[in-house]
Amino acid sequence: VPLPERKLIETIRRRAQRGRPRRDGALVRGIGDDCAVLRPAPGHDLLVTTDFSLEGVHFRRDWHLPESVGHRCLARGLSDIAAMGGVPLAAFLSLAVPASLPQEWIDEFLAGFLRLARLHHTPLGGGDTAGSPSGILADMVVLGSVPRGKAVLRSGARAGDDIYVTGALGAPAAVLRRLQPGDLAESKDAGALRRRAPVAPPAQRDGMRKFLYPQPRLAVGQWLRARGLASAMIDISDGLSTDLSHICEESRTGAWLAEAALPIARGSTLEDALHGGDEYELLFTARPARYRQVPEKLAGVPVRWIGTVTQPPGLWLVAPDMKSRRPLEPRGWEHLS
Amino acid sequence: VPLPERKLIETIRRRAQRGRPRRDGALVRGIGDDCAVLRPAPGHDLLVTTDFSLEGVHFRRDWHLPESVGHRCLARGLSDIAAMGGVPLAAFLSLAVPASLPQEWIDEFLAGFLRLARLHHTPLGGGDTAGSPSGILADMVVLGSVPRGKAVLRSGARAGDDIYVTGALGAPAAVLRRLQPGDLAESKDAGALRRRAPVAPPAQRDGMRKFLYPQPRLAVGQWLRARGLASAMIDISDGLSTDLSHICEESRTGAWLAEAALPIARGSTLEDALHGGDEYELLFTARPARYRQVPEKLAGVPVRWIGTVTQPPGLWLVAPDMKSRRPLEPRGWEHLS
Repeated sequence: VPLPERKLIETIRRRAQRGRPRRDGALVRGIGDDCAVLRPAPGHDLLVTTDFSLEGVHFRRDWHLPESVGHRCLARGLSDIAAMGGVPLAAFLSLAVPASLPQEWIDEFLAGFLRLARLHHTPLGGGDTAGSPSGILADMVVLGSVPRGKAVLRSGARAGDDIYVTGALGAPAAVLRRLQPGDLAESKDAGALRRRAPVAPPAQRDGMRKFLYPQPRLAVGQWLRARGLASAMIDISDGLSTDLSHICEESRTGAWLAEAALPIARGSTLEDALHGGDEYELLFTARPARYRQVPEKLAGVPVRWIGTVTQPPGLWLVAPDMKSRRPLEPRGWEHLS
Repeated sequence: VPLPERKLIETIRRRAQRGRPRRDGALVRGIGDDCAVLRPAPGHDLLVTTDFSLEGVHFRRDWHLPESVGHRCLARGLSDIAAMGGVPLAAFLSLAVPASLPQEWIDEFLAGFLRLARLHHTPLGGGDTAGSPSGILADMVVLGSVPRGKAVLRSGARAGDDIYVTGALGAPAAVLRRLQPGDLAESKDAGALRRRAPVAPPAQRDGMRKFLYPQPRLAVGQWLRARGLASAMIDISDGLSTDLSHICEESRTGAWLAEAALPIARGSTLEDALHGGDEYELLFTARPARYRQVPEKLAGVPVRWIGTVTQPPGLWLVAPDMKSRRPLEPRGWEHLS
């Protein structure tokens, strides 16, 4: 059973402030008032992103350990800040829990969340708590900062720009494929995942780690923004095909991808890489004249050229022989469909 | 059935931008990117508040019209900005809906939300959408602005300060008392409330309006902040007794209230006024030397002296004869209790 609201807020407040200065970066006043008070650096624009993490939609209690749910909850917001080339300033957590939830689950959730928050110097500035009529409901707001006018938007791509992606794609979708019909779902045993992960083969283990603890590409996004290299950028949360279509829509362009160039994670299929969500890699475009300035690795993460922005709308996938192409449908994740 | 996510976001984006300039106040880039981009005025601090509005917890579909749910959802956040003496800059809406919800409900919800947003020059800057496994789930973030270092905190009250409240208290609790055992809950007929309201006696009608469409006291909060009159301030969302205890805790003081001075709404009881939530009135303290500078009405809203801040902790209610006092327990709303 969770603590009553007042005690729960006190607990979160104490844990969020443990070992932190009273004024924490831009955060002048955190938990404990009607609003949090922030003092962003002068000459900077403010970035705002909000992301739901709902039980049964974004996570399942029998698949995701509570630390993983807390981690992913924040990773989703940090990844959006990364996609603008920004630096995170503070996070705000709205959390509603059913009356039957053990307080231990909340404690482990907070541990996962706060560990990632510390890694990226993102203090918890506030939020809301409530009882939930059914299932665990979290909504995470992350505020970030970027030098004035320098945010990397989705709308900056031009015909002829090169398209790049960080990391390798498909692992989270491959994990989901293996889990879906599997024993974990039926046994409803969260511990099974923990026990099973270490004995899985290395490729599966890496995939599992990425599935449970995705790392937002903040350093990569900031590096690209600081050099003005990325003309448009987005993080791959819905799937490569769908997120590329977002860039094309906002930039009023089309694009083609070279199948042979796609970095597909070991143990994953082309379909996983094209349409799988929850990647938290960065997809960006750059003017072709700057091709030599894009390094093969950025902050330890591989960067790969995968295609080109085109004038006419529509997405295409070019076959490995580079002779034929087929339409690429945005078949990534869409809610309510 | 709701629109698929992409269409739903397009609809919200179009409706939010209708008749608005491309750059809307501080909002440089709204819906359509990984993050919204804001450019707050130099020399100002930023205020952040988040509030859940969950079906079955904060509202009921058979009691609250969809416009009312949308209105209240934003009013909660604006009221928090008011309690800091701030000016709202932008709102962010995370909305998850069950697959069975008629799109009409969402349209009316948005109408109620956007009407209040326009009234207070608060553009919708972004948010998130998802399917909900059960019930309608909304989380509203409001960002605001206040001159640097001038936010009115809960922690500024000192022993001897006077305590004031805006408006009259108790009406929302009285409406809830009348609704709870009533026909509306059983008939599950949202229209009944609409049809019934106009024929209710005037006091009930006023109470019903306040229950369905509470008005955040932004002008009052800004007036008090601009003159440096309020030493501490909070909005009454959980109930007078509980919100007063929040001020006392953060200020490390106690307080007593004069029962005879409490502004009780017509048709409401003392209990309604002391412990009823969802008031969205402002509770504030001021140094006793400034008593004459607090007007009886502020932006059309009555302001009443109701008690005094004390050195020792604890809350007391002084009887109408001003001779005896009894402890005042914080018995307002608490989640998870």
